[in-house]
Amino acid sequence: MKSIMRDERVEVDKKLIDAIVQDYETGEVLMIAHMDEEALRLSIETGKAHYWSRSRKKLWRKGEISGNEQLIKDIFIDCDEDAVLLKVKQIGGAACHMGYRSCFYRRIDGEIVGEKVFEPEDVYGSKGDNK
Amino acid sequence: MKSIMRDERVEVDKKLIDAIVQDYETGEVLMIAHMDEEALRLSIETGKAHYWSRSRKKLWRKGEISGNEQLIKDIFIDCDEDAVLLKVKQIGGAACHMGYRSCFYRRIDGEIVGEKVFEPEDVYGSKGDNK
Repeated sequence: MKSIMRDERVEVDKKLIDAIVQDYETGEVLMIAHMDEEALRLSIETGKAHYWSRSRKKLWRKGEISGNEQLIKDIFIDCDEDAVLLKVKQIGGAACHMGYRSCFYRRIDGEIVGEKVFEPEDVYGSKGDNK
Repeated sequence: MKSIMRDERVEVDKKLIDAIVQDYETGEVLMIAHMDEEALRLSIETGKAHYWSRSRKKLWRKGEISGNEQLIKDIFIDCDEDAVLLKVKQIGGAACHMGYRSCFYRRIDGEIVGEKVFEPEDVYGSKGDNK
């Protein structure tokens, strides 16, 4: 019986929504992240962007290490209710852990078009992440 | 042997990337969709936005029913290489299957702030989708 139970056990993914992050003044798309229910609740309650990290499998607050917090000015939800759009004031001027204003700093062919604001190693040490 | 094979069969999810769609002139975020490798290749080759539908589990071209195609002006890729940002000219003026310019036509509290461009039933019949 035990072995059958084990066989039937299913790893259920957390229900996540996409969170698009846009500069509230310039309209520049800064990044995309993901939220579970708690991340969305904390974002609404505190006015600071919280996300669910799919790679680290934990809740995080943008800027918790770098200081580059995102102050939420407005939140919109999409027709399917599985994505939100955050309009934010990006503290420190850079959303990307690579030091660029936006995570979308490259064209699809690799050409770098974004503006570098900081050197990742100065902020995160040798192993960058975007916390 | 056959039954064991069946038990061991695993449903593997397609590798998908997020695709954020932004109006190339106004910067308005219009929608988010998802792409598999073929959708990205077709989007680049044809200059028209193609996506992978997670609900219908098939490739689709935006506007294939409604005529509301998205003409791609530029494509950017993010630092993690699991999301793209499309700058598009939205034909017909509306990206959302609900008839609004943007799928993000509501604040998180439900307040409708978006501009309605068409009535969904006129375009898709009684059962709307955003093709």
